[in-house]
Amino acid sequence: MTDRVREILSWYGSDNPGTKANLARMMNTGRLAGTGKMVILPVDQGFEHGPARSFAVNPDGYDPRYHLRLAVESGCNAYAAPLGFLEAAAGEHAGEIPLILKLNNHDVLFDEKDPLSAQTASVEDALRLGCSAIGYTIYPGSSASSMMYTELRELAEEARSVGLAVVVWSYPRGSQISKEGETAIDVVAYAAQIAAQLGAHIIKVKLPGAHLEQAEAKKVYETTAVPIGTLAERVRHVVQSSFDGRRIVIFSGGAKKDKDEDVFEEARAIRDGGGFGSIIGRNSFQRPKGEAIRFLNSVMDIYGGSTR
Amino acid sequence: MTDRVREILSWYGSDNPGTKANLARMMNTGRLAGTGKMVILPVDQGFEHGPARSFAVNPDGYDPRYHLRLAVESGCNAYAAPLGFLEAAAGEHAGEIPLILKLNNHDVLFDEKDPLSAQTASVEDALRLGCSAIGYTIYPGSSASSMMYTELRELAEEARSVGLAVVVWSYPRGSQISKEGETAIDVVAYAAQIAAQLGAHIIKVKLPGAHLEQAEAKKVYETTAVPIGTLAERVRHVVQSSFDGRRIVIFSGGAKKDKDEDVFEEARAIRDGGGFGSIIGRNSFQRPKGEAIRFLNSVMDIYGGSTR
Amino acid sequence: MTDRVREILSWYGSDNPGTKANLARMMNTGRLAGTGKMVILPVDQGFEHGPARSFAVNPDGYDPRYHLRLAVESGCNAYAAPLGFLEAAAGEHAGEIPLILKLNNHDVLFDEKDPLSAQTASVEDALRLGCSAIGYTIYPGSSASSMMYTELRELAEEARSVGLAVVVWSYPRGSQISKEGETAIDVVAYAAQIAAQLGAHIIKVKLPGAHLEQAEAKKVYETTAVPIGTLAERVRHVVQSSFDGRRIVIFSGGAKKDKDEDVFEEARAIRDGGGFGSIIGRNSFQRPKGEAIRFLNSVMDIYGGSTR
Amino acid sequence: MTDRVREILSWYGSDNPGTKANLARMMNTGRLAGTGKMVILPVDQGFEHGPARSFAVNPDGYDPRYHLRLAVESGCNAYAAPLGFLEAAAGEHAGEIPLILKLNNHDVLFDEKDPLSAQTASVEDALRLGCSAIGYTIYPGSSASSMMYTELRELAEEARSVGLAVVVWSYPRGSQISKEGETAIDVVAYAAQIAAQLGAHIIKVKLPGAHLEQAEAKKVYETTAVPIGTLAERVRHVVQSSFDGRRIVIFSGGAKKDKDEDVFEEARAIRDGGGFGSIIGRNSFQRPKGEAIRFLNSVMDIYGGSTR
Amino acid sequence: MTDRVREILSWYGSDNPGTKANLARMMNTGRLAGTGKMVILPVDQGFEHGPARSFAVNPDGYDPRYHLRLAVESGCNAYAAPLGFLEAAAGEHAGEIPLILKLNNHDVLFDEKDPLSAQTASVEDALRLGCSAIGYTIYPGSSASSMMYTELRELAEEARSVGLAVVVWSYPRGSQISKEGETAIDVVAYAAQIAAQLGAHIIKVKLPGAHLEQAEAKKVYETTAVPIGTLAERVRHVVQSSFDGRRIVIFSGGAKKDKDEDVFEEARAIRDGGGFGSIIGRNSFQRPKGEAIRFLNSVMDIYGGSTR
Repeated sequence: MTDRVREILSWYGSDNPGTKANLARMMNTGRLAGTGKMVILPVDQGFEHGPARSFAVNPDGYDPRYHLRLAVESGCNAYAAPLGFLEAAAGEHAGEIPLILKLNNHDVLFDEKDPLSAQTASVEDALRLGCSAIGYTIYPGSSASSMMYTELRELAEEARSVGLAVVVWSYPRGSQISKEGETAIDVVAYAAQIAAQLGAHIIKVKLPGAHLEQAEAKKVYETTAVPIGTLAERVRHVVQSSFDGRRIVIFSGGAKKDKDEDVFEEARAIRDGGGFGSIIGRNSFQRPKGEAIRFLNSVMDIYGGSTR
Repeated sequence: MTDRVREILSWYGSDNPGTKANLARMMNTGRLAGTGKMVILPVDQGFEHGPARSFAVNPDGYDPRYHLRLAVESGCNAYAAPLGFLEAAAGEHAGEIPLILKLNNHDVLFDEKDPLSAQTASVEDALRLGCSAIGYTIYPGSSASSMMYTELRELAEEARSVGLAVVVWSYPRGSQISKEGETAIDVVAYAAQIAAQLGAHIIKVKLPGAHLEQAEAKKVYETTAVPIGTLAERVRHVVQSSFDGRRIVIFSGGAKKDKDEDVFEEARAIRDGGGFGSIIGRNSFQRPKGEAIRFLNSVMDIYGGSTR
Repeated sequence: MTDRVREILSWYGSDNPGTKANLARMMNTGRLAGTGKMVILPVDQGFEHGPARSFAVNPDGYDPRYHLRLAVESGCNAYAAPLGFLEAAAGEHAGEIPLILKLNNHDVLFDEKDPLSAQTASVEDALRLGCSAIGYTIYPGSSASSMMYTELRELAEEARSVGLAVVVWSYPRGSQISKEGETAIDVVAYAAQIAAQLGAHIIKVKLPGAHLEQAEAKKVYETTAVPIGTLAERVRHVVQSSFDGRRIVIFSGGAKKDKDEDVFEEARAIRDGGGFGSIIGRNSFQRPKGEAIRFLNSVMDIYGGSTR
Repeated sequence: MTDRVREILSWYGSDNPGTKANLARMMNTGRLAGTGKMVILPVDQGFEHGPARSFAVNPDGYDPRYHLRLAVESGCNAYAAPLGFLEAAAGEHAGEIPLILKLNNHDVLFDEKDPLSAQTASVEDALRLGCSAIGYTIYPGSSASSMMYTELRELAEEARSVGLAVVVWSYPRGSQISKEGETAIDVVAYAAQIAAQLGAHIIKVKLPGAHLEQAEAKKVYETTAVPIGTLAERVRHVVQSSFDGRRIVIFSGGAKKDKDEDVFEEARAIRDGGGFGSIIGRNSFQRPKGEAIRFLNSVMDIYGGSTR
Repeated sequence: MTDRVREILSWYGSDNPGTKANLARMMNTGRLAGTGKMVILPVDQGFEHGPARSFAVNPDGYDPRYHLRLAVESGCNAYAAPLGFLEAAAGEHAGEIPLILKLNNHDVLFDEKDPLSAQTASVEDALRLGCSAIGYTIYPGSSASSMMYTELRELAEEARSVGLAVVVWSYPRGSQISKEGETAIDVVAYAAQIAAQLGAHIIKVKLPGAHLEQAEAKKVYETTAVPIGTLAERVRHVVQSSFDGRRIVIFSGGAKKDKDEDVFEEARAIRDGGGFGSIIGRNSFQRPKGEAIRFLNSVMDIYGGSTR
């Protein structure tokens, strides 16, 4: 148990030892064990975008076990997936890596401006499958956001009481937010704050752009001269907006990049801005496994994995 | 235990000793202990307005512990915040000041004419975190008001049964109310009455203006010549509308004022009108801590804190 | 226990002894004790219309205890109010008069054509506060009526199971009913029938006018020559429509009348038509207490109160 | 919040902020506030020994409010009593002093060799009455001890989950223990250990004598030369046996002493041995109030109360 | 994940992935990680024998954190203790080693011929404290055994449903068993079988002697010539009796041995007989920590720990 992991655990002083143990478990797994940094492999795209869009480019990915094995072999801290994918792999690979069960999901066969994800698994499922955490997506900005906040509240309270950690995907979307606004720095920082206020132990947001979406917020950013010029500065502001850095905030890689160097560049900015790591899905599983492991290891090296 | 606190407790004759003890605890804490007056620090703006708009001007406020400490050091009666902020500070500062857990919240990434807050915490959370009261916001005038009244009813019944007090933020807003109407004296008095009828032990409303919004009410105010010319008179009418002064009614400071004297002027009017105190957020935490403590102490002095 | 009270109780043969005892308690209280007639004081106008419109003309009424005391001192059979008003008075005046807890309420800050009241108290609250009955308002004719019928069903089932009586305020309102139609004789008789069918022990309706609202009903009233020419005849028809007089039906006085004699005239019609009494709010509490007691006693005298 | 209180709270790292806040509340009340020492007034003798044996010598003690007031006026940290005594005083004195509700009791009208206390109140009662802790008596050595351990387990789990602290009276008694053995140093240390293992936050035991009861234990005490010659040494050993001093252990005064100096002598030994204070019933309430306050203050002075 | 661990997990084909993950976690921790062998540190002697008998010889052991740290530093697979000991250490050392919460305990202040342990913790406690397994002691041979079997059944069912493993201490004791019979080979083998039949994932028994206790069994052992001459043979028979070696069976070290070599000799016999390891309490914690670590490492080396 490193000092850094102990320090991070100290931020969660209202949580029981069970939840702390599961946070420790995720931080003490894989190539980044002990650094307080995290790279998590999430594979919910089969549900969120459809199977061919997700797996056709690397058909090994149709097999649920492929991803769990990729996470283990590449040295990720944890693997996150919906119920079905975990059901199909958790028994055969019990105890190999911390698991995060995504408790809600959304598909694109019905695609609304103000999206609402459906609850697709339970806290009991997470215990039964041996998970370390539940995952839940909220869409701040959706007209249905209050329904998701309320559902998350109930699930998070239950999860915490049985010693699980809570990972919140906070993705601004909705009829009052522009496309550019979904990654605007003011909006992403707000989304991180909302997740933290709702009790998330780990917050996942998209990498923020320099755009400022909300008129009232824009004024404040300008008058107080919040530094948001570089990606690292924007990451730093999001981390600050997550209880002054006292919550674990990780950033998503988004769609498959053409050049790996772009992902590495982002990882360096996350690191330099004090971010806690990356959650990388499509950029890793949409290529052959050996290549994916090398790619993930390169990202982990940026976060300090190589120094262990 | 002063005579005044005993007198105020006697107004809550249907409540159990647990709820009375928590009301007493709030009245017997801080610089105003024993006076029956209250200054409460509420910090839900991170959720309600976003982190930068709330904390950029005084970045210490990004840290959840900052506000609890400010409330303790300035001698407030209680500190109110959403789940995440309390989770992040209540363990380290257990027992230092009465806590109020805000059970619902609203953000401005989706901003509707008829707002509905989402439930973001539970009565069990309040007990677990060692709170003295739950807080809940209703928006009388919203088409969704009956949903909030009903949810409040359930939460308040549960809270009272386990000895917690109930603090209601009653903020008129909705498609049938003009902007000026949100602080119209008839509307604010009505909002206070609704909160009292719903079982609130402590009612928080905005300071009322001289405007009269509702035609039917306007006639009555004019024919019966209710004195509403000065702010103190309007405060007195709101207090009267809260069971003839037999419920604790406190008033919010609203947005950051340019001049402190304006806040002091308001506090004097609240005091002279028989109000029970202030709930002051942005005007206190959006400035350096030492300055904030002096500012809050000045407000407390107006309410009689200096005489103890 | 008079023969008349026994007779009335015999109409409620499916109810348990607890509910019957509470009906008896209401019938055996006050100046009308034993007559089978009732005058009830209801004070929910603070919530329904706002505090100033309700109490400014007689400011003593801002104090919740005022009304309970008025009901006791004038010899009413029962006192009905929302949660907050009972909370604030029931402890200090425990056991002095049968109480009816209004379980739902509506305010006019949002005023819709098809109204829906919010549930504002529970059956457990009624037990805890020592009430004899729950009260519930339905708006037959509102597009939301089925939601209220369903909620009433659940609450009434629960209330009966714990020995409470059920008082239903049945007020036709909605987008398909004209203003005049809200008190049309066919509509009021229909509203009474609906309340009775929903299991009400005591039904409260407005005094019916001679207007006939519904075309299909109009034909029948005309071809069968139902006598509805006088107010007493219309009262008799409403009572007949309430299970042939085997449910207690009482009539509301409506807004404050200019002349007391108008109220007395109505009470005589209710008596002559076989009605069971009056529920009188604004006409009693919107005047000084001594005057209100004399006024209420005059109404009770009409119902036979003076003969005891 | 003193450093010492913070240090003590740090020993309870698996507890939620609510329980910690209630422990803090007890440690921060009265003349010993902030010292980490405690003097608690317990009055369950009316149930345990009968009213005349308990109160005839000072008949003011028949009134349940007398004892709560004595605890407040003398500056005790908390007041402990069975359900009835708290019911009769908690409403009138809400919030004046931390309360401990004794959840089980035993009378002497049936007096068995292997005693079993009856559950006489619930955790819900404790919340409703505004208590800071539950109290529970176990009789290690009784053939019925496992029934009490199991009941305590359930009550303690529930209490902790709602933020209450758990105080365990651990009194060895039973058919296999001699009279002298009930206060034997090996037996008292064992009783303290059992209470700690069962999850007690505060442990109350009798002052231990130098006798060694159990043959197996006697050998160990002798071969390892545990210092138990003086009362202070024995107190130190009991504190050590309570998780090496990381649980609050307080000692009971027992029956009314002839000379106050004997009690003071014991308090000095408790202090010198690192004990956390005294729980003093009969020696305080079986004398006139003024005298009792002076007596209790003298005890508190020994624990350091005078230095504040 | 080694092949051996996978093989062992395959024996638990009816268990959910959560329980398998917790079994894997225990097998993959410490110096014996991956070997399928286990050395577990259990410290319930403070409750079972009393504090001085347990800790006086090495007073560091009075501190609950000492043992958890010893288990971590010596490379044990897991640490087992009652509620209080885990409460006092699990928060500070969250996630450092798999924990086993002992759900029942027995003290010797009342020592009966037919013992019954008291339930002292719950499955919810185990989750809250972040445990991998529950532990439970049964006394086959006690007249109270069926009560313990039934309680174990309920707790084990609940534990398995939430992904915890079940460790059963199976210690024959009772009025119909001789002292020598408690470790008779027929009796120990029988006790292991009972634990396995009750659903234990891990079985803990005492090392068997050559004595044969039961007349009917004696005949069979003799006629079928079961090899039980050496300790290794007897271990092999116990393992065979535990579902032909398809359940993890570990053996207790018993009281502190005079010579370490005796313990090593036993460990070699356990290894040679196909046993899965040792559960070593007093022999490890009743000596200074450095010495204890060397001692435990020697035992682990026997089981193959040195080869990793």
